[in-house]
Amino acid sequence: MFRGELVPCFEIPARTEYVLDELRRRGLGTIASAQEVPLPVLERVHTPRYLQFLSTAWDEWIALDPKNAERDALPSYWPIRTFRSDVLPASFPARMGLFSFDAGSPITAGTWTAARQGAACAVAGVRELLQGERAAFALTRPPGHHAGADFFGGYCFLNNAAIAAQALRDGGVERVAILDIDYHHGNGTQAIFYERPDVFFASVHGDPHTEYPYYLGYADEHGAGAGEGFNLNLPLPRGTDYTRWRDALSHALEAISRFGAQALVVSLGLDTFEADPVSGFALRSDDYLRVGEAFSAARLPTLFVFEGGYAVAEVGVNAANVLQGFEHAAR
Amino acid sequence: MFRGELVPCFEIPARTEYVLDELRRRGLGTIASAQEVPLPVLERVHTPRYLQFLSTAWDEWIALDPKNAERDALPSYWPIRTFRSDVLPASFPARMGLFSFDAGSPITAGTWTAARQGAACAVAGVRELLQGERAAFALTRPPGHHAGADFFGGYCFLNNAAIAAQALRDGGVERVAILDIDYHHGNGTQAIFYERPDVFFASVHGDPHTEYPYYLGYADEHGAGAGEGFNLNLPLPRGTDYTRWRDALSHALEAISRFGAQALVVSLGLDTFEADPVSGFALRSDDYLRVGEAFSAARLPTLFVFEGGYAVAEVGVNAANVLQGFEHAAR
Repeated sequence: MFRGELVPCFEIPARTEYVLDELRRRGLGTIASAQEVPLPVLERVHTPRYLQFLSTAWDEWIALDPKNAERDALPSYWPIRTFRSDVLPASFPARMGLFSFDAGSPITAGTWTAARQGAACAVAGVRELLQGERAAFALTRPPGHHAGADFFGGYCFLNNAAIAAQALRDGGVERVAILDIDYHHGNGTQAIFYERPDVFFASVHGDPHTEYPYYLGYADEHGAGAGEGFNLNLPLPRGTDYTRWRDALSHALEAISRFGAQALVVSLGLDTFEADPVSGFALRSDDYLRVGEAFSAARLPTLFVFEGGYAVAEVGVNAANVLQGFEHAAR
Repeated sequence: MFRGELVPCFEIPARTEYVLDELRRRGLGTIASAQEVPLPVLERVHTPRYLQFLSTAWDEWIALDPKNAERDALPSYWPIRTFRSDVLPASFPARMGLFSFDAGSPITAGTWTAARQGAACAVAGVRELLQGERAAFALTRPPGHHAGADFFGGYCFLNNAAIAAQALRDGGVERVAILDIDYHHGNGTQAIFYERPDVFFASVHGDPHTEYPYYLGYADEHGAGAGEGFNLNLPLPRGTDYTRWRDALSHALEAISRFGAQALVVSLGLDTFEADPVSGFALRSDDYLRVGEAFSAARLPTLFVFEGGYAVAEVGVNAANVLQGFEHAAR
């Protein structure tokens, strides 16, 4: 739903197919499916009432009206300032609104299964790192970085990067950094760790004054309470090219190094690409090789988690370039 | 916009025509148009940045895309928990979402003019009371009680009842009560006065667990800070008939009497009517005569402000019955 009209979704299944095909074509790494993730692992990041809602949302939507089986579920109301979020209304549409922050993220018949599968993939990647692998890539879809502890939006339902970072912490890693290079600020990830000193969040993204998600991602957000100083936002204007973007990336990587991170989670959005239909940066396909090299230079166990990127035909090449650049430099 | 589909709006111009015709037919009171209300009067209740937004919203919507002239403006994103509301994004759709809480309240070419005219009408009614009239009726459209200091929703943009209560305070009335009998909780009015001891807010309405606006209007909301004890919610289940509803009304009027109100603003929704298409109470047309009598028995200068009521053909009779019952008992 965009400005009052139903329009096709940019976030489509073919995105992961293009990536998978390109990884196979290049013979990059071992490809494996993930086993299901136990609910308690998700509850380390998301609230039980939110997970309960997601797990039954589609059935409840259809129960409202059998005709709903033919259309996606969308929110109709939502609790902004002065409203309560502590009461869970009996009404399903009201609960849907309670947990939503945009009109463009429909819940469909497969949402819960796909989101859980994505989170499982991220957790499987963490397991690889904990067993000594230098890097892993979680090819997750839908993406995750806009999802908060108890809300969905921006095509995101479960925050795969946050779940991975928490799983690293729970696996004994004391200091974890998340670096989000999606074009859109990872508001959900930031919010989840905003008051914590053990997970550093850094993000390079489009200026929220003009770019989604608009209500978070400004440069003056440094963390709060015990988390003060452990959040770094580097918003950049539309039209930013690789040279300027790379400076921001270096700045973020230096901050992560000073933090003393022992593992790195990269929220890997490829919508910084010059031909992306919803974004405004100007990175080229070859630039992503350099991006991978820069990550490799951080010399940390690194989990890449797939986020946005809507130039569908090129998203496979661009994602694979990051991984190949990383692998090449790591040798 | 309702559950992902554009549907006709229940809040239509004919509503006020039916009321006006019935008032003329019965010869109830003097009918007058209101002069424009100065912006500083609105700013006593609404924030300057919100009023600025409303006053230019339609022009900005069209400036986005000339095709927008043919469709109403609707929100696409909104800042719930963990998002910021202090930053005013440059993006117009982002600002629209910042100030909205539902998908069913489009902004149209005439919204600002109509909302301001409604507020002017409420303020003109206050002037009558301050000059010694026993009662006045502000026939406002769109309604107002869902609008907060800086948000719109539920067909409401400017909170006419709150603006009137504040105008009474500013006119020298020390203790003002607002009694909201619309089927839907007056969340905006409650929020505006929630921390104030000089304006008592009482509401009889459908249980928000199942009824709009869902995220406010529960019985445990008593006010906060200096306003603790000056807010009274009396939610009732769907299917409530006049006998039970009247008991709640009496309870609210007793609380207002104990408060020592010197003037009364009634948010007069008629969607408690048994044939209302969106509501669940079972009041009959004759009951509204008794409702008017009950208000009259409070012996306070009383401003009635028109709110909801979507059984359009009967809304005139029901509104006029309240006023006639009041006038008859006041003789």
